Amino acid sequence: MNVSARKPDARPGKRGPRLSRRLQRGDLLAAACPSREILRHVTSRWGVLVLMVLEGGTHRFAQLRRTVGGVSERMLAQTLQWLESDGLVLRVALEVVPPHVEYSLTPLGREAARKVRALADWIEVNLPRVEAARSARRLSSYDDAQSKDRAPLSGRGRP
Amino acid sequence: MNVSARKPDARPGKRGPRLSRRLQRGDLLAAACPSREILRHVTSRWGVLVLMVLEGGTHRFAQLRRTVGGVSERMLAQTLQWLESDGLVLRVALEVVPPHVEYSLTPLGREAARKVRALADWIEVNLPRVEAARSARRLSSYDDAQSKDRAPLSGRGRP
Repeated sequence: MNVSARKPDARPGKRGPRLSRRLQRGDLLAAACPSREILRHVTSRWGVLVLMVLEGGTHRFAQLRRTVGGVSERMLAQTLQWLESDGLVLRVALEVVPPHVEYSLTPLGREAARKVRALADWIEVNLPRVEAARSARRLSSYDDAQSKDRAPLSGRGRP
Repeated sequence: MNVSARKPDARPGKRGPRLSRRLQRGDLLAAACPSREILRHVTSRWGVLVLMVLEGGTHRFAQLRRTVGGVSERMLAQTLQWLESDGLVLRVALEVVPPHVEYSLTPLGREAARKVRALADWIEVNLPRVEAARSARRLSSYDDAQSKDRAPLSGRGRP
């Protein structure tokens, strides 16, 4: 809205609202859109898992590291920094001895985490179906290898 | 189910079902769980975007490449191969001259794409809120730099 208000030559009518809507909403298919960076952070190797865990409540750094299997200290710190810079994670350094830092989701982060959680749930639940698809594919590649001598394209083992 | 049936020494009762459920459902927080690989494919840099586009219907390779801004031929081919190996994407090589290949979602892929789409939609719609959070953070880092001489931890510009 501000965008078209700032342009004195912006024409009213159908074009104005469409333009401002396009500028207000990201477009992930456009290479230069800043929404790409958010996607990269949220779906980064550890971003998904950190959001999932923080959805369960506030965590300290060491707790997070224990819960997210396989993450290195460096990558966890980097991931938390990304999510913090996007306004999804809140980092609170408590004035205690020894000092400690707590991480939690902001309201914005809770929204993002819900979407990420839905995808993660789907993957966890459907792992057996994906594994079955993988096995079927391995079998079909084996068949391919057996009948390799110049089979027509349509006979590549896929229905 | 098969898992506990195959083990002759599996004890019945409470433990059996829990064990088999755990083995049937993935656990993304476990470093060695194969669900991690699916997550990596589905949330790869181009995986999200390819699933989004294919949700709109069957595409040829060149069409996909034009629609997903910034993807290289190599990375698109790699991404499609991952998604195909997970049973999410169907690749059909048509016997025409010149030969061409079509990509579409399998029923499993359509389910995954819906989840990915929900996350992508959220990111596109909430881009302005994330950008606002980023600006606020830049301002607060600036304040930090201004009052750098030994301010207490709690005064780091975050509420």
